[in-house]
Amino acid sequence: MSDLPVLVIGGGPAGMEAAKGIAEIGYRCVVVEKRNILGGTPELANYAALTPNFEDAGEAMAKMAAAINGDPNVEVRLGSTVTAASGSAGNFSVTVKNSKESEQVDVGAVVIATGFQHFDPGRETQQYGYYEYDDVITLVDLEKMLKAEKVVRPSNGEPPKRLCFIQCVGSRDRQIGNEYCSKVCCGVAAKESIEVRKLLPDCKVFIFYIDMRMYGYWENEIYWPSQEKYKVNYVKGIATEIRMKGDRLLVRGEDTTMGRPMEVPMDIVVLSVGMEPSAGTREMGAIFGTKLNQYNFIETTGGALNTVGTSVDGVFACGAAVGPADLEDSISSASAAAMKAVAVVRKATMAS
Amino acid sequence: MSDLPVLVIGGGPAGMEAAKGIAEIGYRCVVVEKRNILGGTPELANYAALTPNFEDAGEAMAKMAAAINGDPNVEVRLGSTVTAASGSAGNFSVTVKNSKESEQVDVGAVVIATGFQHFDPGRETQQYGYYEYDDVITLVDLEKMLKAEKVVRPSNGEPPKRLCFIQCVGSRDRQIGNEYCSKVCCGVAAKESIEVRKLLPDCKVFIFYIDMRMYGYWENEIYWPSQEKYKVNYVKGIATEIRMKGDRLLVRGEDTTMGRPMEVPMDIVVLSVGMEPSAGTREMGAIFGTKLNQYNFIETTGGALNTVGTSVDGVFACGAAVGPADLEDSISSASAAAMKAVAVVRKATMAS
Repeated sequence: MSDLPVLVIGGGPAGMEAAKGIAEIGYRCVVVEKRNILGGTPELANYAALTPNFEDAGEAMAKMAAAINGDPNVEVRLGSTVTAASGSAGNFSVTVKNSKESEQVDVGAVVIATGFQHFDPGRETQQYGYYEYDDVITLVDLEKMLKAEKVVRPSNGEPPKRLCFIQCVGSRDRQIGNEYCSKVCCGVAAKESIEVRKLLPDCKVFIFYIDMRMYGYWENEIYWPSQEKYKVNYVKGIATEIRMKGDRLLVRGEDTTMGRPMEVPMDIVVLSVGMEPSAGTREMGAIFGTKLNQYNFIETTGGALNTVGTSVDGVFACGAAVGPADLEDSISSASAAAMKAVAVVRKATMAS
Repeated sequence: MSDLPVLVIGGGPAGMEAAKGIAEIGYRCVVVEKRNILGGTPELANYAALTPNFEDAGEAMAKMAAAINGDPNVEVRLGSTVTAASGSAGNFSVTVKNSKESEQVDVGAVVIATGFQHFDPGRETQQYGYYEYDDVITLVDLEKMLKAEKVVRPSNGEPPKRLCFIQCVGSRDRQIGNEYCSKVCCGVAAKESIEVRKLLPDCKVFIFYIDMRMYGYWENEIYWPSQEKYKVNYVKGIATEIRMKGDRLLVRGEDTTMGRPMEVPMDIVVLSVGMEPSAGTREMGAIFGTKLNQYNFIETTGGALNTVGTSVDGVFACGAAVGPADLEDSISSASAAAMKAVAVVRKATMAS
């Protein structure tokens, strides 16, 4: 029996990295991506630059796609979804469906790389008025403006004079059920704050935060420069409400460092929305029968020492499908999942 | 030509994970570890329990070692160091030395997994009096006490009534040259604070911090339980000085939330020491000619999308050899390095 391919579900950074790794060590894989393009969330959400090193996101995703497109070991199926699965480690049979047909594909192991979706800030935190006020936007909306190099108030098309980020929207919040920290929003906000200051040197930029989680090198690579070189103002404070005052937004909350209430006018408020499992992540969990955690991310079962194993033998998950993850996490865990998947395929081949 | 093995330098969690991955996909590796035992820092520093899931550290390391010991694809050389290297990707010749002899070993690719060392808190932050006061200890010292299930004041052998952690010792500190955040100390302190409270329910526990970097699931897995279930007190404050008052320690600083100076008596002060590159990391960087970053960790050169590549083709680095890393980071990036190393070996074999 020849080696079966590995099924990689998702064509974002994690899925592409997994596919590349599998191909480079001489194994085959099938990448199933429901959209008609590779690139995942960075592509879908039109990211301008990657965190922390400001690499052009479009170019970076295109480069990753180019590394697998045309590789004889990688079969990319765009516009396709996995709709059913049976079998076990070493020999799964999955149904892959596109707009025209449905096909059974035999694979030896599975890598779920279906990622996250951004928290919908209109869902339960209506105090921020995302759907009410034009000038309340999200990290993702701002990223699009940055990509177009045109940051303006949606309400009147004018460049903002005062812009703030509100951290932890949809994260660290028991009321909405997301107790976890989404890990990347501090870094992304700091990155975007620098980009805004570069583009609009006259715009004052504030970041309202609980804790700035600029772990590892993000501290010296983005956090310090944003303060020292780009004069971004960090305020330890929780914004509880946004209202209109005249034609501007008014952010109300508490400056916890100064120990006093605050009420500050803003032209644009950026909600730093966190991560939630994507629809694909929840669906693949159900189709393959892997345990989900309480937040509906795929649960890894090996503690700190196995970052990609799931409750189903032969099915691995990586990137933001298992929880909040930065790009480094996604890239590294994608390799880990790819490697373990190849080991399963190899073992099955040797046993047959 | 048959495949050359991969050289894995370091027998800690990252090195062991890399070796296991390489072996599982049918390639060979040589693990060189300078100590006479596998297990790395968790073993060397006598960790009690891993962060965040309180897994027994000794058992976990023994299990990782057992997974590679005896594997015909893995040759473990204990008490050995790499002292010289030549060649290039696909064909390196390295000198491996032990107490008896020196030997040339041909390898196809290299994985540097030489990790970190804990910051020496006596070096330049003398205001904390680590070498002056018996009851000023480090995270590592406390871990040893926790392993022995006996947390007492070193000065008098009595259980402490008040114990505090001071975060960011040797991290986020321009004066000592470590601007980066060491990433794990918040999680480790929170974990240890829970263990202290379990062991000594009458001991009040405080954590003085700048930002609590409990990213991802650490937030809900350790941070919230430490506050809600174990009643650990978190104080946003910077301790500037430790003195003796009577037979107790006196911590002076500023409570930045309350905006006032603080002066609090403590029985034990735990310095949350950060990560610095180990001697091995700096040495291997020099021997293989990989660029080091300004902190002397091995520099990765691929931005967020290549977490293990170095400036030298065929030489990869993972875990805390490249910078502050938690266990998940180390395990995932070890797989990534292993996979890329195998790809180099495979390519060289096919070309020959």
